[in-house]
Amino acid sequence: MLALHNVWWIFVVVVVVAFTENGIGRRIVCVTSGGTTAPLEQRCVRYVDNFSSGHRGATSTEYLFLHLLLYFLKAGYAVIFLYRRGSFQPFCRSLPDDPLLECFEATERLNIQVREAYSKAVKTAIMDHHAPVTSGLLLKLPFSTIFEYLQMLQIISKPMKDIGPRAMFYLAAAVSDFYVPWKDMVEHKIQSGSHILDVKLVQVPKMLSVLRKDWAPLAFCISFKLETDSNILLNKARGALEKYNMHAVVANELSTRKEQVVVVTIDDKITVQRDKSKADDDVKNPLIKLLSQRHSAYIEDSKRTR
Amino acid sequence: MLALHNVWWIFVVVVVVAFTENGIGRRIVCVTSGGTTAPLEQRCVRYVDNFSSGHRGATSTEYLFLHLLLYFLKAGYAVIFLYRRGSFQPFCRSLPDDPLLECFEATERLNIQVREAYSKAVKTAIMDHHAPVTSGLLLKLPFSTIFEYLQMLQIISKPMKDIGPRAMFYLAAAVSDFYVPWKDMVEHKIQSGSHILDVKLVQVPKMLSVLRKDWAPLAFCISFKLETDSNILLNKARGALEKYNMHAVVANELSTRKEQVVVVTIDDKITVQRDKSKADDDVKNPLIKLLSQRHSAYIEDSKRTR
Repeated sequence: MLALHNVWWIFVVVVVVAFTENGIGRRIVCVTSGGTTAPLEQRCVRYVDNFSSGHRGATSTEYLFLHLLLYFLKAGYAVIFLYRRGSFQPFCRSLPDDPLLECFEATERLNIQVREAYSKAVKTAIMDHHAPVTSGLLLKLPFSTIFEYLQMLQIISKPMKDIGPRAMFYLAAAVSDFYVPWKDMVEHKIQSGSHILDVKLVQVPKMLSVLRKDWAPLAFCISFKLETDSNILLNKARGALEKYNMHAVVANELSTRKEQVVVVTIDDKITVQRDKSKADDDVKNPLIKLLSQRHSAYIEDSKRTR
Repeated sequence: MLALHNVWWIFVVVVVVAFTENGIGRRIVCVTSGGTTAPLEQRCVRYVDNFSSGHRGATSTEYLFLHLLLYFLKAGYAVIFLYRRGSFQPFCRSLPDDPLLECFEATERLNIQVREAYSKAVKTAIMDHHAPVTSGLLLKLPFSTIFEYLQMLQIISKPMKDIGPRAMFYLAAAVSDFYVPWKDMVEHKIQSGSHILDVKLVQVPKMLSVLRKDWAPLAFCISFKLETDSNILLNKARGALEKYNMHAVVANELSTRKEQVVVVTIDDKITVQRDKSKADDDVKNPLIKLLSQRHSAYIEDSKRTR
């Protein structure tokens, strides 16, 4: 399970080198997205999972490209999208769950065509997705387990370290807090004979500290805090900011997270709301704008203090 | 979470009535597919899940239609496909994970087209899926949690009961063995502050017995037993056959399940293997053929003993 194909490593390095060779001062952001699984058996049948559609990571990636076009053409971002298999993909949010089966239909001449109602959404998704992928500005890497996620994050960090403050980590994935270490796992499927299943999970090592300290110490790091209880949310976000030495923590409450989030930094607490006058606006639009600006300021600061 | 829209109920009844009014003696099979989730919090962030791609249920549904065309035109099956959201869909197994993004490309004229390599797979998937859906022979109903799954199975059983032995349940879903009852769940997200998360799950009530006894006593019932340990597999399958009064239990081992399964009945243990001389054959092909024949025999038997 821990074995990852070396090809990933080479691939990431090559693409990142290509990114950086290309433009002077290209920025790279690693967007993580979706939940991680924590297997309960070595030959895994059951696992603990985190609810996460991957909507935030996918939509944020779209806005990164949008803002790139609107504000940051000179700076230029490239995106490494580290996503949970099966989670939402960038540029696809207007599509139904099963786009191929739902958006297309058979014609009388035994051919297929896009259904009228979906023609714009399908065309936009494919065209908008196609452009950054083929131009080398969007690299997509999938994961499922917490083991895969952490290994791939570490691998991505290596070349990211080399571009210093121009690297950004936008850690939107819902990473398991608890897992069963490999050595403590039973090999075979846990039997259902007993009346109670008592699963003891231990804390996942907090790799955010390691990312900040060793893996890519100069990268601009944003993490997310999701709670269902609004009373504890801001304190938890502030705690994460200090504990892991993040540059910003985005605090969101489960029930209102699509309308409003709070960006907690060492000096500020900034409430970010979606533009309600626009039906299709998303809170990630102003959020990405704010964070990109903060990243710019951070890069300028780094130049001055160098 | 337990609330289901009444519209499902009405919908299922109407469709089943349509099915049965249509042909004299139409058979209906309810194929369940994919894993169920067992939430750990009422405002669910974490849940225990079962590994299941839904490949078996989806592919079996395809073969049900194939065999329908080959052998059962007179009898005529209709399929209710009760599937986990996001799991494999019938007729799509030759497609990649993200078919819309991977199978289509932008043309120079700013239009979209199917990539050459996928043109046959895409056309086949859409056409083959379209035909049974539009002719009312395939009804697809999604679920996620164990609560939704059991409620929908009960709802579907009501009209299935009315067609007696012509109903078949092909229970390929990987249903949770353990869950946290609603009243025992914490409301909010379990905090990650403590070093150990101790989750106590209790057995899910065994509704298969209730299905056989009360919900649809005359339906032909097939369940599945998956184990990772081949030494205990057949005994577990035999145990399930007797305990839940199934007509057949399909025993499969995790690592070899795509090559071979064993159908355990009260009199027999029949090994079913895929036809290795055909590259694209699947063990579900001979399996569905065998089970359909057994269902025919069961219907004939029921007529004689009526």
